[in-house]
Amino acid sequence: MILAGGAGSRFWPVSTPSRPKQLLPLAGPDPLITATIERILPLVPLDRIRILAGQPLVKPIRRVVPQLDDGHFLIEPRVRGTAAILAWAAHEIARQDPDGVMLSLHSDHAIQPAAAFRDLLSDAAVIARREKLLLTIGARPDRPETGYGYIRPGETLEGGAQRVAQFIEKPDRATAERYIGDGYLWNTGIFVFPVGVFLDQLREHTPELGALLPLLDAGDVHSFFEQVPNLTIDVGLMERTDRVGVMGATFEWDDVGSWDAVLRTRTPDADGNVLHGDAYAVDTSGSVVWSEDGSVVVFGAEDMVVVRTKGVTLVSPRSRVGDLKKLIEQLPDHLVRGDDG
Amino acid sequence: MILAGGAGSRFWPVSTPSRPKQLLPLAGPDPLITATIERILPLVPLDRIRILAGQPLVKPIRRVVPQLDDGHFLIEPRVRGTAAILAWAAHEIARQDPDGVMLSLHSDHAIQPAAAFRDLLSDAAVIARREKLLLTIGARPDRPETGYGYIRPGETLEGGAQRVAQFIEKPDRATAERYIGDGYLWNTGIFVFPVGVFLDQLREHTPELGALLPLLDAGDVHSFFEQVPNLTIDVGLMERTDRVGVMGATFEWDDVGSWDAVLRTRTPDADGNVLHGDAYAVDTSGSVVWSEDGSVVVFGAEDMVVVRTKGVTLVSPRSRVGDLKKLIEQLPDHLVRGDDG
Repeated sequence: MILAGGAGSRFWPVSTPSRPKQLLPLAGPDPLITATIERILPLVPLDRIRILAGQPLVKPIRRVVPQLDDGHFLIEPRVRGTAAILAWAAHEIARQDPDGVMLSLHSDHAIQPAAAFRDLLSDAAVIARREKLLLTIGARPDRPETGYGYIRPGETLEGGAQRVAQFIEKPDRATAERYIGDGYLWNTGIFVFPVGVFLDQLREHTPELGALLPLLDAGDVHSFFEQVPNLTIDVGLMERTDRVGVMGATFEWDDVGSWDAVLRTRTPDADGNVLHGDAYAVDTSGSVVWSEDGSVVVFGAEDMVVVRTKGVTLVSPRSRVGDLKKLIEQLPDHLVRGDDG
Repeated sequence: MILAGGAGSRFWPVSTPSRPKQLLPLAGPDPLITATIERILPLVPLDRIRILAGQPLVKPIRRVVPQLDDGHFLIEPRVRGTAAILAWAAHEIARQDPDGVMLSLHSDHAIQPAAAFRDLLSDAAVIARREKLLLTIGARPDRPETGYGYIRPGETLEGGAQRVAQFIEKPDRATAERYIGDGYLWNTGIFVFPVGVFLDQLREHTPELGALLPLLDAGDVHSFFEQVPNLTIDVGLMERTDRVGVMGATFEWDDVGSWDAVLRTRTPDADGNVLHGDAYAVDTSGSVVWSEDGSVVVFGAEDMVVVRTKGVTLVSPRSRVGDLKKLIEQLPDHLVRGDDG
């Protein structure tokens, strides 16, 4: 299951509602969603892959991943948070194989090396099924990131997984630094769920959703999404049950959360810049210069993000591009939607 | 005489060889050359105004100053420095009036208030003719500018002018600060020359040019420009003769030498930004945001210059835009020439 929703404001003006970040080549030459599918294909054959997205994104996604057809999509009738979408996805798998294990991936993460990723998921599937655990993948922090959730690992299980002692929401910087020293992990939101265990846990700990599962049994997906509460899987289930475990990642992981991330997920040049399209950086360091239209020239600057699309140029220091949502609230609507909106 | 040559690299990418800075609205709603002509018209009727420029600029200039016709232009056959062009211009005036006074203005300066400017030139013309002096206009420094030449004034003459004790090329910052305290003036390059005195002085002090004046007498402008040395009037004459004086300006003057100057010559908003075209500055101060194509959004930045044209976006800190020539040397030629090149 590849989650491919998302509003696409973090990479404005290149990302727009009709062209969210997973369609952009933010971690290499291919769009993130293309890389996501290529990465998992050796482990999961194409006919077992499903893309979870809204109808408007089907066409744009098929354009960048031509091997997909309509049968590969689960179209959410309504955006209702990850609890609803994952419950539906698990239910779809359980219809065919009640003992199946669901791998829930995001379409817009940067991960490498791919082989280590597949090996870990493969091991996780075995452990999750054997231990009847909902497993999440935890990445090893290499910086005191305040934008991620953290996991405090507990008891170690056979095969390398650990129980989750605590989920912690985005900490401040000092706390994040302490977490790194204490061996906490980043919560990647990548899940390995035995579908039977997952659906049972929802019935037990998330009754507001679990009570609606018979609608899915009856094939009434529309009513399920009409009635289901807007809930994340973290708040709705993971923090409520003790049947959760974490596997520490052996690969590099980034959720590519802002333009700043591109300096980690693409390979910077000798001056520490990432240039895309017809972009020039002279006497400039630590900057992202991204052009989709015309030329962009940055001269004598440090740590800047400069992005040019057909309709808009954005200029902002790296330290501020995490706040783009705040910026967008202050701009006229036609600017935010973009040319293709 | 309005000097309207210039390569136009300082305001790249908006300025290009075919659209140099005098054609841009850098000090108000009108192009600098339009403002220059409007400013002088109450003192000098249109039929006595001449524009000194190369042939390629005639059409672009007439487009922004429609009241000009071909008869208002003196077309330099070849770019040979200010000594040649002013000698030719003075010769043209002397043919009609040997006792005439030439006002030599630049088409790309910002000056206000206009009335004080005209009053000073009017007084200067009287003094220059009476004292048989080549007068230059000196502006009173309000900052230790290292990009301007300075004048050390000497003996005071009747009517407010002073003799020039010394011309000084661009000083370093500490020296410039001392100059301000010592009452030095900026050399504006605005001249008030009795044409007879000027041509005599050229014959006496600039023989390499003076010897060629008979070519102009014979009407052979082409040969004059072919043979004349490439010389500025400052080096070629002003620094060689003692028949030079300076009038201290009673107006604000700026040579609009770089994008940074626009923050002085246009009126900044409450955050200290100058916005032009479809430009937005959010949490941003001290910046020039200039769009001629599409929207430009600057977020969370300080003291930046961001310029977008149809083909190019330039981003540079204010402190570096004085070095654009250095930048341009490193860019591909098609970028420098611009779309209209």
